Amino acid sequence: MAATDPVRNLETLIRCPSITPKEGGALTELAAMLEPLGFSIHRMVASEAGTPDIENLYARLGTSGPHLMFAGHTDVVPVGDEAAWTHPPFGAEIADGMMFGRGAVDMKGGIACFVAAVARHIEEHGAPKGSISFLITGDEEGPAINGTAKLLQWAAERGERWDACIVGEPTNPERLGDMIKIGRRGSISGTVSVHGVQGHVAYPHLADNPLRTVAAMAQSLMYPPLDHGTEQFPPTNLEVTSIDTGNAATNVIPAKATFSFNVRFNDTWSVESLKAEVLKRLDQAAADEALRPGRKAMKYTIVWSERPSHVFLTRDDALISSLSAAIEAKTGLRPALSTTGGTSDARFIKDYCPVVEFGLVGQTMHMVDERVAVRDLEDLTGIYSHFIKRWFSDASL
Amino acid sequence: MAATDPVRNLETLIRCPSITPKEGGALTELAAMLEPLGFSIHRMVASEAGTPDIENLYARLGTSGPHLMFAGHTDVVPVGDEAAWTHPPFGAEIADGMMFGRGAVDMKGGIACFVAAVARHIEEHGAPKGSISFLITGDEEGPAINGTAKLLQWAAERGERWDACIVGEPTNPERLGDMIKIGRRGSISGTVSVHGVQGHVAYPHLADNPLRTVAAMAQSLMYPPLDHGTEQFPPTNLEVTSIDTGNAATNVIPAKATFSFNVRFNDTWSVESLKAEVLKRLDQAAADEALRPGRKAMKYTIVWSERPSHVFLTRDDALISSLSAAIEAKTGLRPALSTTGGTSDARFIKDYCPVVEFGLVGQTMHMVDERVAVRDLEDLTGIYSHFIKRWFSDASL
Ligand SMILES: [Zn+2]
Ligand SMILES: [Zn+2]
Repeated sequence: MAATDPVRNLETLIRCPSITPKEGGALTELAAMLEPLGFSIHRMVASEAGTPDIENLYARLGTSGPHLMFAGHTDVVPVGDEAAWTHPPFGAEIADGMMFGRGAVDMKGGIACFVAAVARHIEEHGAPKGSISFLITGDEEGPAINGTAKLLQWAAERGERWDACIVGEPTNPERLGDMIKIGRRGSISGTVSVHGVQGHVAYPHLADNPLRTVAAMAQSLMYPPLDHGTEQFPPTNLEVTSIDTGNAATNVIPAKATFSFNVRFNDTWSVESLKAEVLKRLDQAAADEALRPGRKAMKYTIVWSERPSHVFLTRDDALISSLSAAIEAKTGLRPALSTTGGTSDARFIKDYCPVVEFGLVGQTMHMVDERVAVRDLEDLTGIYSHFIKRWFSDASL
Repeated sequence: MAATDPVRNLETLIRCPSITPKEGGALTELAAMLEPLGFSIHRMVASEAGTPDIENLYARLGTSGPHLMFAGHTDVVPVGDEAAWTHPPFGAEIADGMMFGRGAVDMKGGIACFVAAVARHIEEHGAPKGSISFLITGDEEGPAINGTAKLLQWAAERGERWDACIVGEPTNPERLGDMIKIGRRGSISGTVSVHGVQGHVAYPHLADNPLRTVAAMAQSLMYPPLDHGTEQFPPTNLEVTSIDTGNAATNVIPAKATFSFNVRFNDTWSVESLKAEVLKRLDQAAADEALRPGRKAMKYTIVWSERPSHVFLTRDDALISSLSAAIEAKTGLRPALSTTGGTSDARFIKDYCPVVEFGLVGQTMHMVDERVAVRDLEDLTGIYSHFIKRWFSDASL
């Protein structure tokens, strides 16, 4: 019996307690669904000092192009307050038309539906003229170092090439069909240390308070806004996430203070141009004569996060239109093409092929009583089936 | 042999290791100098939960008015890096005309000179027509809770009344005769907690970053300046001394942040009017629409320091002019009448009688190799002698 039922597929996956970074049996169960459909299965373990070893899975059906990738993750976030769940978090119990369980929408549900869609496609039409791959990691909810990025590199080094990718993250805010993600903002963090001169508050001319400059820097980074958004992206947003001094003596001007910030930036910026703008604002605040009359610019140092995420926007009309058409056919909704929200593993995939994201409704993700409407599982399977058929037929034109 | 030699008096006092809060024998030695001069000695120990017990000394010569008080402290700050001292910190060694030791200028030296001045006055003129008292604490360099404030209260409850006071703190920036302190700025501290809403940096509209408001509050307290100084006082100055958040997650907007500040304020302000101005600026920053468009005022709470120091200015012309004349006669310098610097125990004394401060040169106070010119000890003794004679003769007119 092929894995054509998304509800049964999801039940099987939810019952694997694959709390990140544990595999929990989830990839083994997934392999057991895919192998009978004709997929060749590759299990790949990635390691790096200071991070847990991670199991990943790559499975391919077919050997020729065009080549469609489905990407996602079987790891889930911890259950939180287990006593607060009304159904066991790894039970996959159904009540009032909802299946309960950690990962129900983020994103074992998306995987369960895509597996079912492929199985149905094969039952109805045979294997597609081309290839379908699953690229599934166990490290999306963790540090994301031994997951999608390394799995893509590993596969590419074996000669794998893809023409398009769909990521099965829960992209819909309220109803299935609301939203496709066609890009993501970039993300970069930095920590600034400001070096003043310690002294007694009664003799401020003998000291140089770094907090004058820190307050001005924090303000100047957050205001005025870096931009007001673009056609496809929301405004770039910078948040100062911590300011710290650790000076308990109220009669002492501290020698040093630090602050950290994160920027979510749109396609107005590259990582490089954004860094330059941040430094320009910091330099201006450091040199501000109004704050520290007659003084030289305050000294500061900045450390940038090692792994910034670059902004990306997918412009593959065939990919987006075939997915949109499939969604509209099934739900009657015209999905918004959005670039909002946090980063996802799509940021790695975009370097290999065009990528979009579409999955279930995200409302309960990461929460107690994470759950999915059984009806949504059936509908998403229908959307994915329609999309597969349409994408292969468009791609072979 | 009466205690007419300030160098010997100081040597005796420096050799008592009276690091605050320890008495170290210093008050006992002082009593041994004063008793032969006719002073009646009172040792008073003050206690309060959470602070060390403190030994204090009150000594009075004479029973009638006018009544001149000399106030000061025998406790000293720790020696710091003892290996860095070129002479032992409790050795009172003399080299190249300088006596080395912790407390040499702050302020066993001032005490040693005033004792010598009184002893000389008695030798030359007999006991003054009136009274002289020493009000000496062991808690000036510590929390200042069990020291001058309680000793004054204790003495006042016994019926003691004073007509004027001179505090022997090292008031001269560079040369003996530079500066008399005739007042002090007030001091008040506060800690502000700003309560925002935690959230993910990718969804700032669901959060409310308290650090936007903290940065604006810190800026608005420090700029524009609270005033530009008055005839007798330097400008009021506010320093933010610490900003703290403790949020290590760069993708999380924190729920809360705190900052502390201290204000040194002049006679433009009372404690009450200054608090009102601070609250006005905080309220404006909390409600700033430009920072947080469309949001209600950010919530914050403030805790003020329990023991603010009130600003004071001494207007006793006779006291100031007799001290100035004595200084000019001895040094040829017209001392500046200043209100700069930190707080001192004069802030307690001003509630009982007019008070001025004059002592040695403060350059090495609290430092390694604290030291005093032997010549300055002789000259300060001369100034104090001249002042005693002049003050009693003016006061009896
Ligand atoms: Zn996810
Ligand atoms: Zn002192």
